[in-house]
Amino acid sequence: MDYQQILNEIFDELPFGEKQGEVANYIPELAKVNPNDFAVFMTCIDGRTFSLGEPEQSFSAQSITKVFSLCLAMKLLGDAVFERVDVEPSGTSFNSLVLLEYENGIPRNPFINSGALVIADMLVRQLDNPKKEFLAFVRHLSGDASIDYNPAVAASEATKGFRNRSLANLLKSFGNINAEVEEVLDFYYHQCSLELNCCQLAKAFIPFANGGKNLANQRLITPRQSQRINALMQTCGFYDEAGEFAFRVGLPGKSGVGGGIVAVHPGAYSVAVYSPRLNPQGNSVLGMETLERLTTKTGMAIF
Amino acid sequence: MDYQQILNEIFDELPFGEKQGEVANYIPELAKVNPNDFAVFMTCIDGRTFSLGEPEQSFSAQSITKVFSLCLAMKLLGDAVFERVDVEPSGTSFNSLVLLEYENGIPRNPFINSGALVIADMLVRQLDNPKKEFLAFVRHLSGDASIDYNPAVAASEATKGFRNRSLANLLKSFGNINAEVEEVLDFYYHQCSLELNCCQLAKAFIPFANGGKNLANQRLITPRQSQRINALMQTCGFYDEAGEFAFRVGLPGKSGVGGGIVAVHPGAYSVAVYSPRLNPQGNSVLGMETLERLTTKTGMAIF
Amino acid sequence: MDYQQILNEIFDELPFGEKQGEVANYIPELAKVNPNDFAVFMTCIDGRTFSLGEPEQSFSAQSITKVFSLCLAMKLLGDAVFERVDVEPSGTSFNSLVLLEYENGIPRNPFINSGALVIADMLVRQLDNPKKEFLAFVRHLSGDASIDYNPAVAASEATKGFRNRSLANLLKSFGNINAEVEEVLDFYYHQCSLELNCCQLAKAFIPFANGGKNLANQRLITPRQSQRINALMQTCGFYDEAGEFAFRVGLPGKSGVGGGIVAVHPGAYSVAVYSPRLNPQGNSVLGMETLERLTTKTGMAIF
Amino acid sequence: MDYQQILNEIFDELPFGEKQGEVANYIPELAKVNPNDFAVFMTCIDGRTFSLGEPEQSFSAQSITKVFSLCLAMKLLGDAVFERVDVEPSGTSFNSLVLLEYENGIPRNPFINSGALVIADMLVRQLDNPKKEFLAFVRHLSGDASIDYNPAVAASEATKGFRNRSLANLLKSFGNINAEVEEVLDFYYHQCSLELNCCQLAKAFIPFANGGKNLANQRLITPRQSQRINALMQTCGFYDEAGEFAFRVGLPGKSGVGGGIVAVHPGAYSVAVYSPRLNPQGNSVLGMETLERLTTKTGMAIF
Repeated sequence: MDYQQILNEIFDELPFGEKQGEVANYIPELAKVNPNDFAVFMTCIDGRTFSLGEPEQSFSAQSITKVFSLCLAMKLLGDAVFERVDVEPSGTSFNSLVLLEYENGIPRNPFINSGALVIADMLVRQLDNPKKEFLAFVRHLSGDASIDYNPAVAASEATKGFRNRSLANLLKSFGNINAEVEEVLDFYYHQCSLELNCCQLAKAFIPFANGGKNLANQRLITPRQSQRINALMQTCGFYDEAGEFAFRVGLPGKSGVGGGIVAVHPGAYSVAVYSPRLNPQGNSVLGMETLERLTTKTGMAIF
Repeated sequence: MDYQQILNEIFDELPFGEKQGEVANYIPELAKVNPNDFAVFMTCIDGRTFSLGEPEQSFSAQSITKVFSLCLAMKLLGDAVFERVDVEPSGTSFNSLVLLEYENGIPRNPFINSGALVIADMLVRQLDNPKKEFLAFVRHLSGDASIDYNPAVAASEATKGFRNRSLANLLKSFGNINAEVEEVLDFYYHQCSLELNCCQLAKAFIPFANGGKNLANQRLITPRQSQRINALMQTCGFYDEAGEFAFRVGLPGKSGVGGGIVAVHPGAYSVAVYSPRLNPQGNSVLGMETLERLTTKTGMAIF
Repeated sequence: MDYQQILNEIFDELPFGEKQGEVANYIPELAKVNPNDFAVFMTCIDGRTFSLGEPEQSFSAQSITKVFSLCLAMKLLGDAVFERVDVEPSGTSFNSLVLLEYENGIPRNPFINSGALVIADMLVRQLDNPKKEFLAFVRHLSGDASIDYNPAVAASEATKGFRNRSLANLLKSFGNINAEVEEVLDFYYHQCSLELNCCQLAKAFIPFANGGKNLANQRLITPRQSQRINALMQTCGFYDEAGEFAFRVGLPGKSGVGGGIVAVHPGAYSVAVYSPRLNPQGNSVLGMETLERLTTKTGMAIF
Repeated sequence: MDYQQILNEIFDELPFGEKQGEVANYIPELAKVNPNDFAVFMTCIDGRTFSLGEPEQSFSAQSITKVFSLCLAMKLLGDAVFERVDVEPSGTSFNSLVLLEYENGIPRNPFINSGALVIADMLVRQLDNPKKEFLAFVRHLSGDASIDYNPAVAASEATKGFRNRSLANLLKSFGNINAEVEEVLDFYYHQCSLELNCCQLAKAFIPFANGGKNLANQRLITPRQSQRINALMQTCGFYDEAGEFAFRVGLPGKSGVGGGIVAVHPGAYSVAVYSPRLNPQGNSVLGMETLERLTTKTGMAIF
């Protein structure tokens, strides 16, 4: 399959001129990006790579990092993770408190904010130096030691994050946060502030395309854990648009309000797209469009 | 892969003695089955078949038939189907009216009852003889002309189906049912009353494992349509347990309260399981257990 | 207190020219009224009466009739009524199915549609000739034998009433409708089609201002029952605007989408207002305005 | 009316032996009370007083204090209060976040916790020394300078109050808290920690029975404001049991989880009851029973 040829075709077809969607602006740092930035990077498990645009352009990974924190929690705690967070799609938007209240403090899945806060609490309790060890894990996944937090983004979230503080206190009231709320939030805001470019993101997701091994052939998780994380991305990775992504693209993936989307085709490749204009559900407009065209043109989806 | 050997191992391991779960009893006809019946039938796209138990034992397909009706509606109407029904998991139980009211009469997906009623309305309007033509389509999918409705089950649903009548009238109040409510319900109750055995069910789902072609190599739908139906099964096929099925089994599938589950591995096989004891979410206990063991032992899931 | 002088002042102040609000149009018959009609009729328990506009102009009583049906059900069944319907404000709009589903088929109160349907079911089961006996009861309350149903309005509701048919079937699925759904709906549509003018309405509500006795000094219900019906009107009589009416007007009352509002000051008077332009909550704009000015100018409210 | 005789009869009839209900225990300080304490104190607007049990026994006023804070906010800000908080019954339990999220941060009424936090924010912003001035206001209402906060109760709430911290942050995320969250919570916890006995409580509520004047005939609020506060107590004063209280007792009132209930009969009296065993809705079992018997025996309710 000549992926570069297909990517080039997609690039020619994408409606760049329409400038659909808005850049996330709930914190000032996110609003500073160039809305017209665009990049694609694709890594096959055999090591071949393909790209479009500016794959070295870093951006805020935001919710995409929930895959890394879930992965590390599963590595540390195994199935016990799922005693405190469920594996079902939420059917509501990513920061909703509604279901959480009806369901007594057990978040629907690890990718809505409440679920990610519970995972953050697990890591804070489990690790000696949570921020340092989490960063090391992401660097290990991707094989890239230059990945780092953006402290300005983390600080900005901390001063504006009343909704997440509300969620964390609600979880605490149900007994599903064990550490101090502020410590969990501090870790969570750092986690979300991670900056990666498309090249780093695609490489960091290779373990989910490759049965748990990174590009250096090091095993990070078991094949079964890799399958389960992919299943969770498929059913819960796109807020209240998970069904739409499965329907249109047909690959497990995860998006972030920074404008990134990563998807994996198990046994074949991982692919990261960056375009910061978001649709009303908080997912990159051109990112979804690119991936839909990719699986349509290749005829290859997991389904 | 020696599937028969693996099925035999699973048979030896399954906790038949625990008799977990209850047979559906909301209509008398469903309650008459033998709770201890058990069958598995697997059909590979290359024609090989494998089985356990009593694969010739027929049972009420119930919600599994929603895949057939969606498939026929997509064949007849294409993407226009999705102007009247969404493709998102519901996060609520299969007959919930709640989301429908909040979302102005557009059902979350074609596999919750409200969505299936909208699909039924499309077929009733589109076909000259809806019940006859739908039956012909299912026979064509499976290549088995002996499949038929169970009129006693359909009649029993008609007299007890106040919840579905409530849903259909609510949809009508939102303008998302065009035909007469009673005509739609009559079609829907017949659709759900279809009886198939595991052998027939597995064969009827081969088109979803085989890019749209049945075992006789006849094209029924496009490869893209087959992928999309699989995506919908994956995200929405198990009521409020869709995430659990994706997480534990890792295949697209659909269950029915009659005790059947069908799953497909695109490019490989379809498999039907029958065991009428249901868990509280309405899915076959041993059916889910069998399929989880199948993908665990083979190491093969779509993720 | 010179009520006529106060009514005249109100008439001079009301913003008739603004023509705020829309006439109900969900059935054609209701849309036929003159949107600028206006009437007030006030009856003191000592027999004095006061009026404005056209108090002989009849209109569709609609939800106001729920007070009559509740009153008759309490007279026939006593406290047993409240085993099948609660006495709490709903916090949601008048035809919502949402709470009903969460609360297993027990309507929040007798004045939302689901509650009124349960009351209708009680009357259908309890009376030999429900429509005839209910009409006789309303005539007895008001002392006016000329009050009657509007069969055209009832027939129009029957053909358009998919939402009420949905509610009734949902109640039936929970076992909280005993008679046939269509029989209950037929009674309910007739009940709602009752036509009264402001003079008749004010007189029909005198028992609630007068400890259970009508203007002919006949006892219809006990003082305690009268108090309880008033309490229910106060907390639940205005759909999701009950608090607003208590806050602004300070009297128990009941509105209908036909444009009528009746309120009572226990120990003093009952007052009916008719103006068919409705606010978004379904209550008469000028009706609420008139009653707010009445209690403000008199300084008399129950609070 | 010989109120003392009626109170004595009630005392003889109350089912003290049944010991129904549980003392609030979500903070240790509240759990320390004697569950069998009982007191009633009634103050007529003409100065007569009647009592039962131990009317000098102080207890934690808790949610009853929301009437005092609303009253002070209305005195300071007038109708502007109701631009940030609605006047509708909530239909959900007192600390629910659900409605708040659906309704974009405008609490349903000032007596659910979210509404009381918004009122607290108004006072914190409006007053130079909020805790001191609020306390002075309550002393002025009751004419009793010995009323005070219980710092241990306030401190205990502060360490356990994750649910209120969650609510306050959610309100802040919607822009409906202006001051710092922790400052608002500190004021709110002090407000709720106020200790009064039945004698003080009944006197503090006299202004609502007496058109806005306290027992010393000093005007604190206008008659219209007094009516509106009573209307709010009637429709919203008992969490999700407001309808039940209106139905059974028929007076405006307010309860607290400390076990107190105060009710007023405008133009006649105010009455406070203390009995710390609560029903599942959080209202005093014997308190409600006492007040129901009081209005039944006297035949006097506002309806």
